[in-house]
Amino acid sequence: MATKRVSVFKSVLAADEQFALRIRREMDERGVLVLNLIGSPGAGKTSLLEGSLRRCRFRAAVVEGDIATARDAERIASCGVPVVQINTKGGCHLEANLVSKALGAFELDKIDVIFIENVGNLVCPAEFDLGEDCKVAVCSTAEGADKPLKYPHLFHECKAVVLTKKDLSPYVRFDRELFWGDVEALNGKAVKIEVDNLTGEGIDTWLEWVEECLEQKRRP
Amino acid sequence: MATKRVSVFKSVLAADEQFALRIRREMDERGVLVLNLIGSPGAGKTSLLEGSLRRCRFRAAVVEGDIATARDAERIASCGVPVVQINTKGGCHLEANLVSKALGAFELDKIDVIFIENVGNLVCPAEFDLGEDCKVAVCSTAEGADKPLKYPHLFHECKAVVLTKKDLSPYVRFDRELFWGDVEALNGKAVKIEVDNLTGEGIDTWLEWVEECLEQKRRP
Repeated sequence: MATKRVSVFKSVLAADEQFALRIRREMDERGVLVLNLIGSPGAGKTSLLEGSLRRCRFRAAVVEGDIATARDAERIASCGVPVVQINTKGGCHLEANLVSKALGAFELDKIDVIFIENVGNLVCPAEFDLGEDCKVAVCSTAEGADKPLKYPHLFHECKAVVLTKKDLSPYVRFDRELFWGDVEALNGKAVKIEVDNLTGEGIDTWLEWVEECLEQKRRP
Repeated sequence: MATKRVSVFKSVLAADEQFALRIRREMDERGVLVLNLIGSPGAGKTSLLEGSLRRCRFRAAVVEGDIATARDAERIASCGVPVVQINTKGGCHLEANLVSKALGAFELDKIDVIFIENVGNLVCPAEFDLGEDCKVAVCSTAEGADKPLKYPHLFHECKAVVLTKKDLSPYVRFDRELFWGDVEALNGKAVKIEVDNLTGEGIDTWLEWVEECLEQKRRP
């Protein structure tokens, strides 16, 4: 049973990998940067995007992944940015075939950066390639400093870790040194950024990193 | 492909359902109550247990589910309660076959209530029967009030919703009425409990509910 299960899984994954490859190829040709934002429910992914979209100098679009509702897409739309909501109807992560359809709704020659906000889940989305340039881990101080070691896969895979809700840290006894020390141990190359969604602190640092990734991608 | 995938999934699930049925049968015979606690990473599941285990009048044991580390089990062990840590090594939820093995480590005739703390994930664990008497949704004010509608399955399935980190609500602009209104709309029968892990407020109400479930189970 186990072998059969694994082989069927592999076929399904292989089909989806083709979608991911196609997305990556097209976005590379167009010079569009694609970031896959992954974090727990309530980590502050949508708030991070709201804060970013109001300040950024590049042309952005957003793909919202949720099990149900279009609430996040409505929040993004009110920032005046093109957005497509994907409802997975129970599915715990986005898949490349769904993202591929969503991208078809954008005028891609008018976009520099596409943010994909994955389903709120610190586990499963880390396993699936959506054709992105890189994964970004989003984690809030309210979740506790033990999350990198307890959910190592994402922290190992991502190119940047954004720690949100810095304003809450005095109330939640967040151990900042433990958190960043564990991130460093799992992934010494990950860029480390702290943001405070309320005051906007750190958003510029985050946007500078995104711009740097975009420039790097477009450098001949 | 899709049909084959579904049928293979069904066989794997069916095998695991047998484990769940066996657990339920044995725990029913023994009159041991089993609660399956499900919530996001950092929702406060382990803190809720720590607060409960120090006050409860029944004899408790805990099964800890995590992808990696034994940190939660260490926290529980320091409360002087029997605990088994399951590491899923990447798996996004506990399965009944793993729980069945874990239960073998307990002296079941000395236990009244077993708390299973599932992997931190608001999505996948809600789909899997572990042979529990009921599922309990654990959600923190820091996650935001929109979680029930965005992750409806668990809130629909559970018998109680425990809202944690009440102490943080002034700092996170948590909309209490919206939260409980959406829970009510999804599941009018769910018991609604608010706790504050710092002061211990609400823990007695939660423990009274657990005791009530235990009494109900043992009533001839």
